[in-house]
Amino acid sequence: MSNYYVGVDLGGTTVKLGLFSDEGDLLEKWEIPTRKEDNGSHILPDIVESIEGKMASYDGHIKGIGMGVPGPVTDDGVVRGCVNLGWGNIEAKDELASLTGVGNVKVGNDANVAALGEIWKGGGRGFDSIVMVTLGTGVGGGIIQHGKIVNGSTGAAGEIGHIKIKPGAKEVCGCKGHGCLECYTSATGVANMAKGGVIETKNTLEGSYLEGKDITAKDVFDGAKEGDAYCLEIVENFGFLLGVGLANVASVADPEAFVIGGGVSKAGNIVIEAVEKNYNDNCMEALKGKQFRLAELGNDAGIYGAVRQVIK
Amino acid sequence: MSNYYVGVDLGGTTVKLGLFSDEGDLLEKWEIPTRKEDNGSHILPDIVESIEGKMASYDGHIKGIGMGVPGPVTDDGVVRGCVNLGWGNIEAKDELASLTGVGNVKVGNDANVAALGEIWKGGGRGFDSIVMVTLGTGVGGGIIQHGKIVNGSTGAAGEIGHIKIKPGAKEVCGCKGHGCLECYTSATGVANMAKGGVIETKNTLEGSYLEGKDITAKDVFDGAKEGDAYCLEIVENFGFLLGVGLANVASVADPEAFVIGGGVSKAGNIVIEAVEKNYNDNCMEALKGKQFRLAELGNDAGIYGAVRQVIK
Repeated sequence: MSNYYVGVDLGGTTVKLGLFSDEGDLLEKWEIPTRKEDNGSHILPDIVESIEGKMASYDGHIKGIGMGVPGPVTDDGVVRGCVNLGWGNIEAKDELASLTGVGNVKVGNDANVAALGEIWKGGGRGFDSIVMVTLGTGVGGGIIQHGKIVNGSTGAAGEIGHIKIKPGAKEVCGCKGHGCLECYTSATGVANMAKGGVIETKNTLEGSYLEGKDITAKDVFDGAKEGDAYCLEIVENFGFLLGVGLANVASVADPEAFVIGGGVSKAGNIVIEAVEKNYNDNCMEALKGKQFRLAELGNDAGIYGAVRQVIK
Repeated sequence: MSNYYVGVDLGGTTVKLGLFSDEGDLLEKWEIPTRKEDNGSHILPDIVESIEGKMASYDGHIKGIGMGVPGPVTDDGVVRGCVNLGWGNIEAKDELASLTGVGNVKVGNDANVAALGEIWKGGGRGFDSIVMVTLGTGVGGGIIQHGKIVNGSTGAAGEIGHIKIKPGAKEVCGCKGHGCLECYTSATGVANMAKGGVIETKNTLEGSYLEGKDITAKDVFDGAKEGDAYCLEIVENFGFLLGVGLANVASVADPEAFVIGGGVSKAGNIVIEAVEKNYNDNCMEALKGKQFRLAELGNDAGIYGAVRQVIK
């Protein structure tokens, strides 16, 4: 009989699950839909049922379950509201433990958990402390210190997408704030900068690589790779704003390395180069020379990080 | 025979020392000069000699020595250079332990140690996590999470004076960066804003409470308390920049409370009011409503925090 561990990445549409060996190897992964009706009251029972069904074909015990959720989570595993799931305050850790009879249960915020996955098995391998930035539709963040997630006092630590990088600017963020890092450096933000009217540019959209396109962040980085001057200018602005933002994060958290993930990071080293240069130009002497890495686990970061919470 | 603990606040001009009881009560405090000659090699022996001299009149043993130093310190108690002391890299913790024969020795950065003092016996009492901001000639910061100092990977965590609050602005900081929080919200920064040419104002220095004065930060807050429109405008700008800066800090560290100390904080509640309002206007919903407190220990924060590192 073997021991197994389960990592659960609970999202607004699907729940990703991973079964791991004692040694932390991913044995199998699968997904179930997230049933949000009835205030999300079916979600945890569905997860438990799915895990139990999966275990029918394995000879052994579950020694731990780790989960990531899309909302703030305290050190005690209490989820402080998840609009995406229909959840108010939920004692997710205790409920999952009680439904499964497994004592070793941990729950964390999804961005923090992804950071834990990347420092364990991804782009942050070998470091003791990282800040992970996820550049997707929004900008998420997760902070790992001494190998552990930093939740902060209310579970909102690491929300670096909402650093005000242009205080008082006209751009309004999803959080209702003005001038948040997310307004400029998310996939949406990069596209918006390229569409015009957000930042001042020397070159113009007209006649550029982007002319006539719908304009996505990918288009902007593709154009920059081909040497298009307008795209290069947008990428430089992206790099400046994210570099300054991460310099500000370093002034608070002083990690060993930054790991950059999410859709925008698929553009590759051009992202690292744009950010790293501007970071070093805008941080204190004592903070220069931090490592910058691309995330490596993609959509699996969540299940890896979730299970890492409960595997020693 | 009783047990005693010593707190050492090592500054560039004087070393402040405090002798504490087992219960954490300050029994006696005194100072010695900081001898910086010979690369600061006399500093630690002088401290040890002074402690031993003091103990001649006490019947008991020293059970622990904690020290704060004006430079970055790692979790291992290694000081990574202190220009003010003539020090390069110094294994301060191990040297102090070896010179005294006391095993329980801890060394921390002075701003971090002051934060630890304030959460123990000062304005941060009752909280589990705080960010302390010291508004003096410069702007220092210290972060306490779960009652412990956050040093970061190189001892530079909590350097919040060097957050770029106006990225790319013309104002140059002591750290050589442009647009650091310190440029506007230190005592010097507030005075510079009032002297003109730094920020746009509706009112003018001419005809204001400040006309004809040398202009210190204290003058600016005094004028604001008397209702002078120009001083009120400078205070509002100070509050906006520090409030946004602390909102950015909260997005990373999510503390329970902010404690504001240093010379500028002597202006009292007007400082808290200016900062708290702008903080709440510029942070995410999840981070609103943090507590803001004035520091209470003044120049003794250093010895209290230093000794707190070694008293349980």
